[in-house]
Amino acid sequence: MFLQTFETYNSINERELKDKNVVVIDTLRATSVITTALYNGAKEIIPVSEVEEAIELVKSLDKKTYLLAGERNSTKIEGFDLSNSPLEYTREKVENKTIIFTTTNGTKALKKVSLADNVILGCLLNASAVAKYIYTSNKDTVIVCAGTEGKFSFDDIITAGVIYKKLQDLMKFESDDLSKACYFLYKPYEDNLYEIMKEGYHFKRLKDLGYDEDIEFCLTVDKFDIVPKLKDGIIKNSADL
Amino acid sequence: MFLQTFETYNSINERELKDKNVVVIDTLRATSVITTALYNGAKEIIPVSEVEEAIELVKSLDKKTYLLAGERNSTKIEGFDLSNSPLEYTREKVENKTIIFTTTNGTKALKKVSLADNVILGCLLNASAVAKYIYTSNKDTVIVCAGTEGKFSFDDIITAGVIYKKLQDLMKFESDDLSKACYFLYKPYEDNLYEIMKEGYHFKRLKDLGYDEDIEFCLTVDKFDIVPKLKDGIIKNSADL
Repeated sequence: MFLQTFETYNSINERELKDKNVVVIDTLRATSVITTALYNGAKEIIPVSEVEEAIELVKSLDKKTYLLAGERNSTKIEGFDLSNSPLEYTREKVENKTIIFTTTNGTKALKKVSLADNVILGCLLNASAVAKYIYTSNKDTVIVCAGTEGKFSFDDIITAGVIYKKLQDLMKFESDDLSKACYFLYKPYEDNLYEIMKEGYHFKRLKDLGYDEDIEFCLTVDKFDIVPKLKDGIIKNSADL
Repeated sequence: MFLQTFETYNSINERELKDKNVVVIDTLRATSVITTALYNGAKEIIPVSEVEEAIELVKSLDKKTYLLAGERNSTKIEGFDLSNSPLEYTREKVENKTIIFTTTNGTKALKKVSLADNVILGCLLNASAVAKYIYTSNKDTVIVCAGTEGKFSFDDIITAGVIYKKLQDLMKFESDDLSKACYFLYKPYEDNLYEIMKEGYHFKRLKDLGYDEDIEFCLTVDKFDIVPKLKDGIIKNSADL
């Protein structure tokens, strides 16, 4: 198995993804939100790139069946039911619902890789579950970090490092330099992720906006044993596919 | 001062470089070679992207005044005077010579940033000299790693981390996430760079080719107190410009 990591979706050549697992990471907060929503019983998540696309899509749906969700520039979109805070995605709110979801970086990364065979979503909340999925599939794997504003983002890179470590506990594999860098960057902070995460621009931005509880939640490793999977434009719990 | 780092020249927007220092890093081995050559008295280095371009360029030159130098796929180019090994660039060979130089990654990175105002070359050999240059100029600075085969390369990234540390000893500055990642990746290996460098693909490739002495040389921190600078397509010791 060969593991490759891309720091943003900009540097991806879509043809390189064929016949591989693709793991999209947007720890703060899109993939953490989606993992939480599915764990709490959401029926499915439909990622869309643009706010207008989300509004257009729900016109044909029964209001009882869906929730409009997402953010722009880290804040809630006017008229939407849910923001990009995982704490809002309680079982009470999301169970059996279709969630139409748009975020600045995460959903764009998902669109970019949607042609790949096997797209799963990773974050710290499900790091071990993702590693187990890769191990079981035994396919070459490409980690695609969502990044922040088109750039290398600490939170995603550290998460890639955690997944690398979990995978290392399960199997031997080869990897590219960025995958190894993620691991070696994370390794000294294994028992205190917060210490390294706090250096990141996006972390600081969310902290300045007062999202301390969101950060704490998203930094919890292995809270949920599920793997969200994108298929035909819809994200479901991989166990249901 | 704001410090930004790019893992390869592919992700650079040339317009972003205006009015900034640009530090090009290709530790294994182009910028190490150029630094060594200038330290040993070479008159100037003319970087060219293609082998044919180098051959064309020297047609109009007196054979006593220049040396053809460089590599393709880490090995010497047929008919060239020097390879990409810094050990060959002795004072005896290079003093007062113009060196026409082409390498797989390094010279391409130099071409890409050549429109910027202030392009200097960094490696481990001159890490402190580069930090001092940045400190003295007090301009926003962009580190551009040459990378290996268009990808994130450990050797360049660790060098960026060393320059970050040297700069931190001189001044306070802000930086982007990748700059910080370089520093935090390097930090635990401050006293044993070899230990982290050996994880890199390019390092392993050079080792497999038997370039152990080159590696050892290129991994020496602060051997030379000079800063190569690119101006009008020619690289000279910045002290002479």
